[in-house]
Amino acid sequence: MTSKWTYSFGGGDADGSAQMRNLLGGKGANLHEMSRIGLTVPPGFTITTEVCTHFTETEGDYPDGLNDQVGTAIAKLETIMGAPFGGGQTESKILLLSVRSGARASMPGMMDTVLNLGLNDEAVEILAAETGDERFAYDSYRRFIQMFGDVVLGVDHYHFEDLLEDYKLDHSLKLDTDLTADDWKTLIPDFIEVIENQTGQPFPQDPRQQLWASIGAVFKSWTNKRAETYRRLHGIPASWGTAVNVQAMVFGNMGEDSATGVCFTRNPSTGDNHFYGEYLINAQGEDVVAGIRTPQPLSLAEKENGNLSMPSLEEVMPSLYTELDGVRHTLEQHYKDMQDLEFTIQKGKLWILQTRNGKRTTKAALKIAVDMVDEGLIDRNEAIRRVEPGHLDQLLHPTLDPDAPRDVLSTGLPASPGAASGKLVFSAEDAENWASRGEDVVLARVETSPEDIGGMHVAKGILTTRGGMTSHAAVVARGMGTPCVSGAGDITVDVKAKTLSAMGKTLKEGDVITLDGSTGEVMDGTVATIEPELSGDFATLMEWVDGVRDMAVRANAETPEDAKVARGFGAQGIGLARTEHMFFDADRIIHMREMILAQDVDARRAALGKLLPYQRQDFVDLLSIMEGLPVTIRLLDPPLHEFLPEKKADVEKIAVALGVGVEDVERRAKELHEFNPMLGHRGCRLAITYPEIYEMQARAIFEAAADLAEAGKDVQPEVMIPLVADVEELFRLKDLVVKIADLVLSERGVDVTYSVGTMIELPRAALQAGEIAKEAEFFSFGTNDLTQTTYGLSRDDAGRFLQIYREKGVLEDDPFVTIDQDGVGELVKIGTERGRATRPGMKIGICGEHGGDPASVTFCHKVGLDYVSCSPYRVPIARLAAAQAALGVDAETNA
Amino acid sequence: MTSKWTYSFGGGDADGSAQMRNLLGGKGANLHEMSRIGLTVPPGFTITTEVCTHFTETEGDYPDGLNDQVGTAIAKLETIMGAPFGGGQTESKILLLSVRSGARASMPGMMDTVLNLGLNDEAVEILAAETGDERFAYDSYRRFIQMFGDVVLGVDHYHFEDLLEDYKLDHSLKLDTDLTADDWKTLIPDFIEVIENQTGQPFPQDPRQQLWASIGAVFKSWTNKRAETYRRLHGIPASWGTAVNVQAMVFGNMGEDSATGVCFTRNPSTGDNHFYGEYLINAQGEDVVAGIRTPQPLSLAEKENGNLSMPSLEEVMPSLYTELDGVRHTLEQHYKDMQDLEFTIQKGKLWILQTRNGKRTTKAALKIAVDMVDEGLIDRNEAIRRVEPGHLDQLLHPTLDPDAPRDVLSTGLPASPGAASGKLVFSAEDAENWASRGEDVVLARVETSPEDIGGMHVAKGILTTRGGMTSHAAVVARGMGTPCVSGAGDITVDVKAKTLSAMGKTLKEGDVITLDGSTGEVMDGTVATIEPELSGDFATLMEWVDGVRDMAVRANAETPEDAKVARGFGAQGIGLARTEHMFFDADRIIHMREMILAQDVDARRAALGKLLPYQRQDFVDLLSIMEGLPVTIRLLDPPLHEFLPEKKADVEKIAVALGVGVEDVERRAKELHEFNPMLGHRGCRLAITYPEIYEMQARAIFEAAADLAEAGKDVQPEVMIPLVADVEELFRLKDLVVKIADLVLSERGVDVTYSVGTMIELPRAALQAGEIAKEAEFFSFGTNDLTQTTYGLSRDDAGRFLQIYREKGVLEDDPFVTIDQDGVGELVKIGTERGRATRPGMKIGICGEHGGDPASVTFCHKVGLDYVSCSPYRVPIARLAAAQAALGVDAETNA
Repeated sequence: MTSKWTYSFGGGDADGSAQMRNLLGGKGANLHEMSRIGLTVPPGFTITTEVCTHFTETEGDYPDGLNDQVGTAIAKLETIMGAPFGGGQTESKILLLSVRSGARASMPGMMDTVLNLGLNDEAVEILAAETGDERFAYDSYRRFIQMFGDVVLGVDHYHFEDLLEDYKLDHSLKLDTDLTADDWKTLIPDFIEVIENQTGQPFPQDPRQQLWASIGAVFKSWTNKRAETYRRLHGIPASWGTAVNVQAMVFGNMGEDSATGVCFTRNPSTGDNHFYGEYLINAQGEDVVAGIRTPQPLSLAEKENGNLSMPSLEEVMPSLYTELDGVRHTLEQHYKDMQDLEFTIQKGKLWILQTRNGKRTTKAALKIAVDMVDEGLIDRNEAIRRVEPGHLDQLLHPTLDPDAPRDVLSTGLPASPGAASGKLVFSAEDAENWASRGEDVVLARVETSPEDIGGMHVAKGILTTRGGMTSHAAVVARGMGTPCVSGAGDITVDVKAKTLSAMGKTLKEGDVITLDGSTGEVMDGTVATIEPELSGDFATLMEWVDGVRDMAVRANAETPEDAKVARGFGAQGIGLARTEHMFFDADRIIHMREMILAQDVDARRAALGKLLPYQRQDFVDLLSIMEGLPVTIRLLDPPLHEFLPEKKADVEKIAVALGVGVEDVERRAKELHEFNPMLGHRGCRLAITYPEIYEMQARAIFEAAADLAEAGKDVQPEVMIPLVADVEELFRLKDLVVKIADLVLSERGVDVTYSVGTMIELPRAALQAGEIAKEAEFFSFGTNDLTQTTYGLSRDDAGRFLQIYREKGVLEDDPFVTIDQDGVGELVKIGTERGRATRPGMKIGICGEHGGDPASVTFCHKVGLDYVSCSPYRVPIARLAAAQAALGVDAETNA
Repeated sequence: MTSKWTYSFGGGDADGSAQMRNLLGGKGANLHEMSRIGLTVPPGFTITTEVCTHFTETEGDYPDGLNDQVGTAIAKLETIMGAPFGGGQTESKILLLSVRSGARASMPGMMDTVLNLGLNDEAVEILAAETGDERFAYDSYRRFIQMFGDVVLGVDHYHFEDLLEDYKLDHSLKLDTDLTADDWKTLIPDFIEVIENQTGQPFPQDPRQQLWASIGAVFKSWTNKRAETYRRLHGIPASWGTAVNVQAMVFGNMGEDSATGVCFTRNPSTGDNHFYGEYLINAQGEDVVAGIRTPQPLSLAEKENGNLSMPSLEEVMPSLYTELDGVRHTLEQHYKDMQDLEFTIQKGKLWILQTRNGKRTTKAALKIAVDMVDEGLIDRNEAIRRVEPGHLDQLLHPTLDPDAPRDVLSTGLPASPGAASGKLVFSAEDAENWASRGEDVVLARVETSPEDIGGMHVAKGILTTRGGMTSHAAVVARGMGTPCVSGAGDITVDVKAKTLSAMGKTLKEGDVITLDGSTGEVMDGTVATIEPELSGDFATLMEWVDGVRDMAVRANAETPEDAKVARGFGAQGIGLARTEHMFFDADRIIHMREMILAQDVDARRAALGKLLPYQRQDFVDLLSIMEGLPVTIRLLDPPLHEFLPEKKADVEKIAVALGVGVEDVERRAKELHEFNPMLGHRGCRLAITYPEIYEMQARAIFEAAADLAEAGKDVQPEVMIPLVADVEELFRLKDLVVKIADLVLSERGVDVTYSVGTMIELPRAALQAGEIAKEAEFFSFGTNDLTQTTYGLSRDDAGRFLQIYREKGVLEDDPFVTIDQDGVGELVKIGTERGRATRPGMKIGICGEHGGDPASVTFCHKVGLDYVSCSPYRVPIARLAAAQAALGVDAETNA
């Protein structure tokens, strides 16, 4: 018994279906499916992936029976199309074929295609006669020769292009379209000669010989270098193989009764439920998108809405329009999603070339999803699956009016979404001064540091010329919801001269610029913006989302403003309040510096005592805003040198303020300097050496909690010790916190439930999680730092070469944006398993930047985390991603 | 049936033995063992650890039958000693007891001891009469009251000290020894009153009440805070409990027929096989070590050798000396090791108080081990077990003459062993200048950088005031075998003024200082040194060692000098040749800088082309010296900015030499600056961005290999790609290396066996080892970097707080010295298992600093590594440690 190697489709029927992806490939299965549901797709047949496997294993042989099956399939095509393949001597019609690859997984651009197959010196005449367009026929023929030469015979395309260029020069022609049928007729023998010279073989005139050569070329392309690299990077096994789709060519340019078009079953910009599309009479598909001719509207309504003058398809070919509108309904009923389809009308007959789920704006995605639930087409869970969580970002910030003109100076990294215009300032101090005068400012820096926090808070937008997606500027800006473009390397910022140069232009302080933090664009002047709308479909969907997800979503926030925004966006508590951010205010940092410059523990305690009231008030604010919800407070984390000034003038100011010598300040700064501060004296290491720092912070937390508890408020502080590498560190510092908590709470006579836990942000901590869980009451994975140490990659420095890695394809995603599941992820898994083995049911979350990345949220769900915590503006994204994860959706990466 | 709770010993017999450690504790088991082999130990009994467990569980109860068993045991003691416990009313002799804790594992100083137990207001008179020394009797009594008060009743000892100080002030007395019997008689009632005031209870006069109170106190001390902390840090389970040893007191100060002494069965300094010791007539043990009276020599030979005038024990008490000499032989025959024993002669009777393996110099350890094999006492494997590998270090470098006077300025970290004296210089340039004039110099720097290599090479010693045991200075110095003291924080080095200040002194350029890299001492002036001797016992033992070990030992070396030293020390190849060290020579670095400053790939290639001949010659040298052995060559690793100068003057020089602007050099340096260079653009990341660098290095390696292969030499290059995080990096770079290797070797027509592998030095690489092994033909764990990233700890910065961690007991060992088995070690295990799962039998080694640390070598053996690689001067240590590991010895840490 011979196996079935070819599957036919077309003529209102199909051997295969959408379910047969593994055997027929993605493209093939889709063509069969369309044909199966009665759409008039150009008929064809699929040669299965099994044939590819046989071909690869035997290095070029085909299985028995294939030859006959292909012959039968072609005969069927000839019947459906009413024309012989390659044309017959007595026929006035001709069947041409396309040959395309189509693997199980999409491998865009990786493999080859041959069009117009079947043309030869005789067939081209038939085509000319049939279409009445000699130029079209000969142009098609030379395109076929060129494509066949390149793809099938391996003749580099520059050979043909050189010939063409010479010809144009000799005849003073500029564009390909300037060539006439006669010009092509002259060139074609030269093209054929090139092939013969390069291959030493005649160009095959026999259509069947052309077909088999093309099929073989597609199968061979499965094992070419480019495809192998792609498979290696995407984890696609070579054993899958590719299918080959052979399909009848149809032409929309066979006269005034022919046409071609592209359409969407609903409006892809707004989501409105009306037919939307464009077409051209007597044209090929590529003409619609090429922009040489202006396409016409599909429907009368569209024409009227757009106030257009060109006639719609509805008017020109009313019955075909009705047929197409029927196809629209068939498709939506079958695929239950908005479709993007291509059609061709060849001599009054409608052919559907392709259908796929249509790309749409986020606004449209929301509307379509909610509408389709109302229409009964899909259920709520399906609606939740339909919206890309990462795309919600577009809705949560003001955006640039897409129609407004823009004068782009440079494109940096889209570090924090949203758009902002403002006057240029070059220092945090200037930002505060200008803002206090009521000016909108954009702060431009080479990079930002914690000292710039004040200025960053008041700026409408932040621009840096260095640093990546997780640089200080980027992280802080995202936390604040302030638009930010980072690492705009083409821009030169001269902070002293207060100028910004790019593209040969120099802007000075006070000049207006506009940032688009969603695209990374930096523009000269003001560009109009549009405000976000969070009600309607958005609110409906988010309500459904919360009913589905089982992971909580918290926010990373420490200012009252951020905490309020977060709660407004639906955050279920704070997962990371960075207490050090509270020390940078002008009236506080002086005490912090006094503490750092102190000579002994008593002097340090005295300075800390001055910080206590501020810190206590911080916690009163945070715990009040988050009443009834948990607030995870991370004790001091950064190395102390981050709090000392760098500029001579500032050093002098501090020396005067604290009554010490400038040289004392400089000496201490020098003592504290580190080569690799990320791996230095920070986190819990500070408190092992200076326990009094955490003592003050613990006191501030529990005094604040006691104040609120006395006022009858439900407060839930969770104290988090950072950068633990060994349980011994946590043992000592937990003991310190618990002692102070018990002291304060018993002094005050109030009862506050609290817990003490740790960040797992070092590989060692993840490995030692079983031991650490003996002390830790909760874990929070600090995946920013964990990524840095697991990968040996500094997020402040890696921007430049990570970009090269991604350009060269060494790395697919930025591991600071989407969690590296193979490395960092394994440590998260290990840490979770070992932690819960020691302390069953332990509460575990994640508070790195990854908490707001959909793919990472999916991963967290799979690992079994209790919550994710992310910057306030990403809370809705995380909520949706968590719901999708609960529904089993594998989110795409957000990078 | 009642269980046995007490085990008696003494009188030439014992209930227990050395094997009963778990039940009797370490000290108890040892006392039983001595008694069992016929030594006259003061008799006593051990209350088992099971009683402790019962006591702890019941919070203070004793098991049934214990009371009777203790009574019986005491009766036995009284019989042996011929005196009643606490004295009888009619007796002229008195038995006093000691009560000591003794757990299964040694917990030095963690638990309590009570001596002279049994004294009371009456018994003190009997003791006075028996010894004829009233002062001794009353002093003993007040000591007992004080100790009992403190240890058993919890009365802080300052209460007693205050009383004593007041008394001495009132009576114009200075030392305790100035007090007479009458003085003590006056003070004793005050001491007793203190106890009664503090405890509200009378001081117990009943000896049995004293005894039970003391036993209870020892058991209670098992659960005190101090002991709990110690157990937590050392992983000792609380369930083990402690035993209590009750033993008869013996006194060496009961007259001229009494004596006390300490002796070694062989000479602990030289290892010579003669009896060696000191004693005092009519004295207590503490008098021998206290240094108030000068102890006398034990034997006549010793007296004559030392030209001493005081009579020896051999002369004074010849028969007792003969008895003691018999004990010496009994002990060596029984314990088969050199013993350190304490004895007391009470009224003409010899008592052996304690014996233990004697501490000895490394020289003595070697001699004793080799001698004992010759004597048939132990076998070769046991001899190998007897020498501490880490201690060999003392023998491999010149050492300071221990008798020479030294004027210590400061003590830093013992970063690279050996001693050196030389004239102070403060820059690498000065070091080279002075050395070229034939001067011995010591280079003093705040810290060193790769630019200092030239000066470090010529210096006799290196001193830094910053950086830890694995700082640049330390690592490079150990590699060179140059003595180095790092992180001498008390010293201030002023490089500009060319001065060094410490202890109020200021030394200037040209002043002589001496470093002891084995202790970290920095001394003013010259201190005489002794040269090492590597033949004799050392050579004999090392030969045995190589017959036993199954792990190979290689060296980390890149200069011909280091490679030669390494081979001389028995290295079986090079495990890590750092190619970047080859770029710092003055005539090479200019091309390196040219490469870094190049604007495009062609200019980079041109500069690299100039480096090629140098690099090729480097490999010719290395591969020749290591002929027949593998040489692992690591391609360029450090970030490029390390090669650019920092000083303005140097920047200007380069700009002139390369014909570029100063601002170009500065701009490039700024571009390359990194916040955390350890996590930056280095290792294979350089080659992914600039493949031409590794291309040049690969060409240099294989051209060198081809040259030597043509000359008939057996060369075994192993090319190592550093800092791989993902197999994709290795895939591409291995491909690059293999292509060039194949090209060069086929051009030259020679056959060279080579392999391409990678360092596993990032947590991600260890986790992904299964994938990486698809490409890597060998792994070498770079445990320096792996420790940095696993722990999140920069070795350049961690020095200061790691010291505090160790002082506070948070951390036991420096993880840069002894591998952190729980964290880094697990990654090494994971990496090895996963690597070999993909590539069975894969060659795997370690090339971090840990390769020369005995405990780490043991760990590597357990994990199944094929080799360790360490700095040349540690090769013998690693050989011995590897042999011990093969013999199942658990090496102590070297930190």
